[in-house]
Amino acid sequence: MTESLRIVPLGGVGEVGKNMTLIEYGDDAIAIDCGLMFPENDMLGIDLVIPNITYLLDNPELLRAIFLTHGHEDHIGALPYILPEIPVPLYATRLTQGLIEVKLKEAKLHSKIEINTVNAGSVIEIGPFKIEPFHVCHSIPDAVGYAVWTPRGLIIHTGEYKFDQSPANGQLPDLDRLRAYGDEGVLALLSDSTNAERPGHTPSEQIVSETFEEIFEQAKGRIIVATFASNISRVQQVINTALKHERRVAVVGRSMVENVKMARELGYLTAPEGIFLQTHELDRFPPSKIVIVCTGTQGEPTSALVRMANQEHHQVSLRRGDTVILSATAIPGNEELVHRTINNLFRLGADVIYQSLMPVHVSGHAAQDEQKLMVELVRPEYFIPIQGEYRMLVLHGRLGQEMGIPPANIFVVENGQVIEFDEKGAFLAERVPSGPIMVDGLGIGDVGSVVLRDRHLLSRDGFVVVVIALDQKTGELIEGPDIISRGFVFVRDSEDLMEAAKERVIELLESGKMHRDTAPTVISDQLSQLFYQRTHRNPMIFPMVLEV
Amino acid sequence: MTESLRIVPLGGVGEVGKNMTLIEYGDDAIAIDCGLMFPENDMLGIDLVIPNITYLLDNPELLRAIFLTHGHEDHIGALPYILPEIPVPLYATRLTQGLIEVKLKEAKLHSKIEINTVNAGSVIEIGPFKIEPFHVCHSIPDAVGYAVWTPRGLIIHTGEYKFDQSPANGQLPDLDRLRAYGDEGVLALLSDSTNAERPGHTPSEQIVSETFEEIFEQAKGRIIVATFASNISRVQQVINTALKHERRVAVVGRSMVENVKMARELGYLTAPEGIFLQTHELDRFPPSKIVIVCTGTQGEPTSALVRMANQEHHQVSLRRGDTVILSATAIPGNEELVHRTINNLFRLGADVIYQSLMPVHVSGHAAQDEQKLMVELVRPEYFIPIQGEYRMLVLHGRLGQEMGIPPANIFVVENGQVIEFDEKGAFLAERVPSGPIMVDGLGIGDVGSVVLRDRHLLSRDGFVVVVIALDQKTGELIEGPDIISRGFVFVRDSEDLMEAAKERVIELLESGKMHRDTAPTVISDQLSQLFYQRTHRNPMIFPMVLEV
Repeated sequence: MTESLRIVPLGGVGEVGKNMTLIEYGDDAIAIDCGLMFPENDMLGIDLVIPNITYLLDNPELLRAIFLTHGHEDHIGALPYILPEIPVPLYATRLTQGLIEVKLKEAKLHSKIEINTVNAGSVIEIGPFKIEPFHVCHSIPDAVGYAVWTPRGLIIHTGEYKFDQSPANGQLPDLDRLRAYGDEGVLALLSDSTNAERPGHTPSEQIVSETFEEIFEQAKGRIIVATFASNISRVQQVINTALKHERRVAVVGRSMVENVKMARELGYLTAPEGIFLQTHELDRFPPSKIVIVCTGTQGEPTSALVRMANQEHHQVSLRRGDTVILSATAIPGNEELVHRTINNLFRLGADVIYQSLMPVHVSGHAAQDEQKLMVELVRPEYFIPIQGEYRMLVLHGRLGQEMGIPPANIFVVENGQVIEFDEKGAFLAERVPSGPIMVDGLGIGDVGSVVLRDRHLLSRDGFVVVVIALDQKTGELIEGPDIISRGFVFVRDSEDLMEAAKERVIELLESGKMHRDTAPTVISDQLSQLFYQRTHRNPMIFPMVLEV
Repeated sequence: MTESLRIVPLGGVGEVGKNMTLIEYGDDAIAIDCGLMFPENDMLGIDLVIPNITYLLDNPELLRAIFLTHGHEDHIGALPYILPEIPVPLYATRLTQGLIEVKLKEAKLHSKIEINTVNAGSVIEIGPFKIEPFHVCHSIPDAVGYAVWTPRGLIIHTGEYKFDQSPANGQLPDLDRLRAYGDEGVLALLSDSTNAERPGHTPSEQIVSETFEEIFEQAKGRIIVATFASNISRVQQVINTALKHERRVAVVGRSMVENVKMARELGYLTAPEGIFLQTHELDRFPPSKIVIVCTGTQGEPTSALVRMANQEHHQVSLRRGDTVILSATAIPGNEELVHRTINNLFRLGADVIYQSLMPVHVSGHAAQDEQKLMVELVRPEYFIPIQGEYRMLVLHGRLGQEMGIPPANIFVVENGQVIEFDEKGAFLAERVPSGPIMVDGLGIGDVGSVVLRDRHLLSRDGFVVVVIALDQKTGELIEGPDIISRGFVFVRDSEDLMEAAKERVIELLESGKMHRDTAPTVISDQLSQLFYQRTHRNPMIFPMVLEV
């Protein structure tokens, strides 16, 4: 009996197959990526979201290894949460490995996990799989996709890619290798759908270098460039431009400093030692000789740029004459914070340059023409758009159809949907658990819909707690009613309302209509009515009846 | 002694001079617009935000009238909140008046407020002012700007405008009148900054009609067009295209139905009676003969489109073959809800067409080239960018400079900043109160930073209330500790933690180290530590100590 091959997109909030995808054959599986997502706006108080690995925990011997495509948080960030449960070996390129090691050290997992370095072209054999990483261009160096030979055929997982013919580090996309897979025959292509809404071709990193050149040419004062700490290529572009214009570079912020250090050690960032200066040395150089690189493009309150914008940064105070470059786009959901930051930078008199004004950022993902080129090179029998929200998968699927793949061979699925390949072909098999696992503080998965619903209610209208102590023999009121309320009304200005609430409770007690066991419900209903009538708000109400 | 002329941008959250601007001379002032804003994402539980009229309440005889530029919520929506405080006459064009009347009737203010109809070209005299509305193109018919002659000179307030040479209703922008003001000499131009980040010229409404034509040509099933209920011009475009393609039009949703009815009665929407059908008649016509017009472009949970997307709409259930058009852009902050709606529509098998895919919407605001044309026509001595966030005002100000206005004559200001014009020129005078006034239920302005901070804390980590009853003579524990918690942990799975908290309180009581008056603080500190240590969360903690 031959076994089935199964592909299972597991991780992502909103997005499908973004953070983790399984490739399974018989009793063995490998995972590609193990990333985290940031919570959606209505996941109140949640720190981050990780893939649902219930299926792997239910089949504890199944997973053999995790292969990482690149070093971004949404591809490696869940490792510290998932490895303690499933301590399998990791496979990653050198820079990705460096970024993973920082994480595992912090989580004290370093000594427990085997990390293997892979390079584009090297082949790893695990169980029934042969796995070969291939080089792709993305917004971080050393990104790869994976070719996975299985007994049922060859699977291509693109990772996150674009076909950039002028990448920041000069490493061109490996079209030949992709074409060779296609020549050999590919069973299924799993391809990055992020930019399926964008026609044409994603602009090359070259245009960012040119824009930097133009800005550096004209700026008279300091230049502050904000980008993601992981965007090593962008930092390289800043350094290159700074070199030409004889500016020194100060790297500000812990995560940025760490990443730059590590990338230099591993040889992924080329810079003469002399170009860097420490933040405390900034005053020793004229403004026209300084570039500051920092984080904060998403308006994160604790980032260096936002602290500068709010005049709360201890070492850098912005002023007229400074030029600030936001070299990133706002992740959906962050727009308000980003706009606020830009407004505040302008208020300080800085000149702010962001993507609406000049091309200071390009996407790291393939647009439609590149997505089509990928299909054309690989010529898969089956096409599975991944790494995108549902609408992007649909649109990406349509592109596949335009490229000649029959609609029946295109699988637009949700996380947890198993796609099975047997001797007759591919079909949708069962679904495995896939709901996002929310991390809040030390709690992994303990906050669910109930706690979130309460947080939502509390965030809208707050709460009121009413405490009364009754004589356990007579049922008479001995103490109270005492009221605590937060988030409902401004308590200091609402004494009348609180007095009215207390009186209502006393009336209810005196009326004799309220039995001890129904007291909480009656008080709750009556106060709800009172509060709604007076304020049109619905605080959560909690009566506590002590019998003493 | 001659008096000073003063201009005061009053209303807007994030945006400046968006919802209300005062023009004041001596003892008289008129306001332009009286709109509301929707709360920013961190204004938890807030329904809407209105302009701060403290300055007008402090000077009760000052305001003589309110002039409305057009019928959008952010220009008329605060009237029901502000007119009870300051019942002045209103001036508006006919359609705007119709929209205002609906509001005032709902608020039972209709009989108390005088509304005067104005037309482009008519002149109103109030105190020292002569006011003339002039026609502008915007995304609602009957929009105007205002020319205000004052003893110090002529002020031009553009309202919200674009220079559309193919507007949906055929009414061209009145370049001649603007040029005539310029010829006469304009002291100050207050101009719409919304699209100051966009180069070039905002595309004409014509392109939307063409796209509709293309979609209607190809769609085989039902077509559902979602847009703002106030976007009467867009509804007209749908009707025009439906007529050509012999489709009937069903208007779905209360606000949309009301606005269409009113606009037809006033003659702002042209449609043969026979083209409309009722929602309950939908099943009587083949899908290819149906267009549904509804709201929901912002992902509003109660809107018709979102209910359709969630399969919760009683009368319209979407299916494969339906084409859904989202004819609007997401207002910043709404992206997540909009994307979720689009994903869900695709999940139902509908074909969804939105702005990333085809030009099914154009902005109602002037882009940079039009903003320059406005300055060129009006040739003001002073330039005051309004109606935009701070960064847009800065960019708009730069355009003014490019057009030859000296930097010293360009005022980029915040809400509440008085700009004064005396015999020597213009200068920044004092600031008047301008913080946004938040409306929550019946409360206007009672929710401030304290309540919002509490809602924020509650939304992140919830709360814990601990109640103990002590003997008032001996200080011994009589009852409790009882604990109520919401939004912190899933209580049913956290009995251990709650027991630990109770034990900690009992230990504290038994240790004798805790005095009655310090008990709340000690309990709070100790439980804070315990909870953080176990969960890394920081719930609000409220100890209640009853003495009985």
